[in-house]
Amino acid sequence: MSSRTEIASLGEFGLIDHLTRNNETHHASTVLSIGDDAAVLDHFGKQIVVTTDLLIEGVHFDMMYTPLRHLGYKSVVVNLSDVCAMNATPAQVTLSVGISNRFSVEALEEFYEGVYAACEKYNVDLVGGDTSTSDKGFIISVTAIGEVAPDRFVKRDGAKKGDLVCVSGNLGSAYLGLLLMEREKKIFLESPAVQPDLESQKYILQRLLKPEARKDIIDFLEEKEIIPTSMIDVSDGLSSDMLHICRRSCVGCVLYEEKIPVAEEARQFAFKLSLDPTACALSGGEDYELLFTIKQEDYDKIVLNEQISVIGYITDVDEGEHIITRSGNKHAITAQGWNAFK
Amino acid sequence: MSSRTEIASLGEFGLIDHLTRNNETHHASTVLSIGDDAAVLDHFGKQIVVTTDLLIEGVHFDMMYTPLRHLGYKSVVVNLSDVCAMNATPAQVTLSVGISNRFSVEALEEFYEGVYAACEKYNVDLVGGDTSTSDKGFIISVTAIGEVAPDRFVKRDGAKKGDLVCVSGNLGSAYLGLLLMEREKKIFLESPAVQPDLESQKYILQRLLKPEARKDIIDFLEEKEIIPTSMIDVSDGLSSDMLHICRRSCVGCVLYEEKIPVAEEARQFAFKLSLDPTACALSGGEDYELLFTIKQEDYDKIVLNEQISVIGYITDVDEGEHIITRSGNKHAITAQGWNAFK
Repeated sequence: MSSRTEIASLGEFGLIDHLTRNNETHHASTVLSIGDDAAVLDHFGKQIVVTTDLLIEGVHFDMMYTPLRHLGYKSVVVNLSDVCAMNATPAQVTLSVGISNRFSVEALEEFYEGVYAACEKYNVDLVGGDTSTSDKGFIISVTAIGEVAPDRFVKRDGAKKGDLVCVSGNLGSAYLGLLLMEREKKIFLESPAVQPDLESQKYILQRLLKPEARKDIIDFLEEKEIIPTSMIDVSDGLSSDMLHICRRSCVGCVLYEEKIPVAEEARQFAFKLSLDPTACALSGGEDYELLFTIKQEDYDKIVLNEQISVIGYITDVDEGEHIITRSGNKHAITAQGWNAFK
Repeated sequence: MSSRTEIASLGEFGLIDHLTRNNETHHASTVLSIGDDAAVLDHFGKQIVVTTDLLIEGVHFDMMYTPLRHLGYKSVVVNLSDVCAMNATPAQVTLSVGISNRFSVEALEEFYEGVYAACEKYNVDLVGGDTSTSDKGFIISVTAIGEVAPDRFVKRDGAKKGDLVCVSGNLGSAYLGLLLMEREKKIFLESPAVQPDLESQKYILQRLLKPEARKDIIDFLEEKEIIPTSMIDVSDGLSSDMLHICRRSCVGCVLYEEKIPVAEEARQFAFKLSLDPTACALSGGEDYELLFTIKQEDYDKIVLNEQISVIGYITDVDEGEHIITRSGNKHAITAQGWNAFK
């Protein structure tokens, strides 16, 4: 080859865009292809969604502080979250693992316990997979399949001017949990005798190690007969995922700092580290909450749900993407999300 | 943990069986779960099959002699082969890759060229995936989805006494291609100046590096209105895959050495290495031919198809699994297939 372009120069999303820029689909059953939380397939007139994720030790998780049971649980949940982000109901998963000989059968059993626990909680079936040896590290690939009523799936590209921007639960906790674990790991490596006191930080740790997919929100939206105009799950941080919606939908947005939900435990720990909790919500990833837009007329239907916060509204594309701080200043939102290739 | 069981002590199939022994499925749409070439899902009364494979550098392929374009092609094809082995038609694939920084964007483009070439050849759509960094090595995970007419899927467990055992194409070539590449790699590492002459071995190399899924056989069977009683794709070697059918179907079998199809190029190269070509067919993997059983009355429909060989018949389970050699001796068939954990 005559030229060499470094992968890091494109970034994760740039790389996918680049490699799939000429991808054409021909199959009658392909309704929606690459570029959203999941693909939508129409087999014989009925629709399913499919999504897949690859988790690699040392990149996506650190075995030093990730219990295997939690890892199994999370591997399934992050895929179910993508299914939910399409407004679909998870139904099946397949699981492939690559493992080195340093793992015992008992260790793998623990991992599978977590997988089964997630399957049971979300009423999905583990229907297939592949088990392979790996020279180094633990590799996990999960594919999830969900069902959606025909043409009720929700993409990232439907937000319209005036729509309300909503987010479920709270943001930033998983990132703060990660900072906590990185700190404790460092202390442990320097002074193995020191016992960490993690009890008071249980909440942010759980958000990191055992996230949940917001199927309850999907069920609530269905019950209230709300179809969001756009939706994504917050895996890369609020700013990055909000920008995905804006760019796909060709719109701008205004968010209000004071409306962004942050858990009290996360706020306290952020202050301890002299970090801005809002910055953690904007740039931290892995919260797996749902970020979605709804029409203004649907506001009354969601206002009483404490699990949903309205954090801003959609504007014309010319107005750009901004956040209004507590002090009333206006800042441009920039993608500070997780870049796997940095 | 109080005890440690080495993964190698269970082997690949033993490990999967062990980890999934308590797996129960609850979803109404799960028709067939773990244990066959693919799962079968019934969404709203229509059926699809799903299968997934994980390919890891150094375990499943050697970058030293695997062109990236071929690797992309093969990664897709091995999954389509599993879809075909269910008597289904491939429709979509998802692709996740984990790559280290030693790969350039151009290298990854080559890989994707192969992926797209396979998609085009088999008329399937690439609909999703995930791209991630990897500390070490190239990791590929593909999931394929196919369509099957309701209840026309073919499992491994339906072979009945008296059924004919059939195989498509020929066997053993991919394994001999692998031996050739391993030999050339050794020569190259010892004397980098020596140029290999691989021209005369083109066929077996192609069988290793660029296998095909036998969708043509699935189409032929449909045209002739034959539904095999059982089917599997030959990925682990004829003996191992034949034993899968026998054990699942609770039957025995008799195969005839002289009927097992081996390509002339493969036979010649086996002789060069002082290997028995039949042993290569029995124990070598990765041919991705279809091994299936049909009722005797369907014999007339397949006899003129040169791509299908009848290699034996199904017996009572008490009679075990045997092969009759050219010299008339009878040997038990043992699983000599590829074990990823050895």
